[in-house]
Amino acid sequence: MYPKTIRKLIEIFSEFPGIGEKTATRFVFFLLKQKKEFLKKLIENLENLASQVKFCAFCKKTTEKEFLCEICENPTRDLTKLCLVSKEQDLEAIEKSGVFSGLYFIVGEISSVSQKELEKINIEEIRERIKNPKKFGVFANFKEIILAFDFTVKGRTLSIFIEKKIKDLPVKISKLAMGLPLGGELEYSDEETLKSAFEKRE
Amino acid sequence: MYPKTIRKLIEIFSEFPGIGEKTATRFVFFLLKQKKEFLKKLIENLENLASQVKFCAFCKKTTEKEFLCEICENPTRDLTKLCLVSKEQDLEAIEKSGVFSGLYFIVGEISSVSQKELEKINIEEIRERIKNPKKFGVFANFKEIILAFDFTVKGRTLSIFIEKKIKDLPVKISKLAMGLPLGGELEYSDEETLKSAFEKRE
Repeated sequence: MYPKTIRKLIEIFSEFPGIGEKTATRFVFFLLKQKKEFLKKLIENLENLASQVKFCAFCKKTTEKEFLCEICENPTRDLTKLCLVSKEQDLEAIEKSGVFSGLYFIVGEISSVSQKELEKINIEEIRERIKNPKKFGVFANFKEIILAFDFTVKGRTLSIFIEKKIKDLPVKISKLAMGLPLGGELEYSDEETLKSAFEKRE
Repeated sequence: MYPKTIRKLIEIFSEFPGIGEKTATRFVFFLLKQKKEFLKKLIENLENLASQVKFCAFCKKTTEKEFLCEICENPTRDLTKLCLVSKEQDLEAIEKSGVFSGLYFIVGEISSVSQKELEKINIEEIRERIKNPKKFGVFANFKEIILAFDFTVKGRTLSIFIEKKIKDLPVKISKLAMGLPLGGELEYSDEETLKSAFEKRE
């Protein structure tokens, strides 16, 4: 039987998304084979993850700054546009494409299209960011809200749900154009597809 | 752009076997979503991996003991049989099957069947363990050496290579029977297949 530390690590790695016991075991023996420096760096950065990484008060993106992230505190961004995304990886993909210069808000993911899952989305949080961004230290004046969700059943459901809940606000609501291929997830889209989806947004 | 700590962690996780940048990113955001306790447990066990986990002086298996592992220091094992395996996961699979009660030695893996790779196998280490186990604190008297390698091209090559290098020693050399399916890797074999391969070893 593996020593206790190894068994515990296998157990922990097995909880990582998509990782089974065999792969978790391989991870541990991979770590054992690395130079001490590698494990030290891993531990150090995991410690920093707990102590250094915070979440932006406005958009909820990860940041090492105290209050607002680099995007939200940047006065040269287009402060009339707010882009709603499900997760930070989507925000990152859009930023990389360079096609959008407004602000973001990470609304969270749903794991299914059930009513119960949709109720986990905090609509009040979203409405507050649109109506009263100054409350969070952001001097924006949003005129357009872009719903940038995956072009999947979950993403479309989320989009329709949120649109319904904010359509009374005095802002234009737009969605990414059908430039994303059917079933396409934002995180995996190439920059060109994202650009076109952004430019042709409805 | 992700904060520095996140970028570094993505980089580190990307070096894990079979893990690309996307999966590494997912790992980091998975960790960010867990309770603090989870990250703490992970860090704690990674620290233990460096400080607590040692390698058995005889068989090279991981252990939390000082010198010999639980198997090598157990006097009720069959001290006439030595089973050579490539990696600890294979040893673990054989132990789980309960079909073998002798000792083991982990000879290491080869990443290809090139001469250069084969030369990485430390033959002297293997010969010393067969000829002079007392030197490593094991009071065994090996009469049979079982070559228990994957039934793959790499495994067969390793088997033939090692057999050639130890066949002058006064021990019987046996190999696992063809109970393993072609292309079958030891680590993934079910207990029954392993049992039959062991019992019918040639």
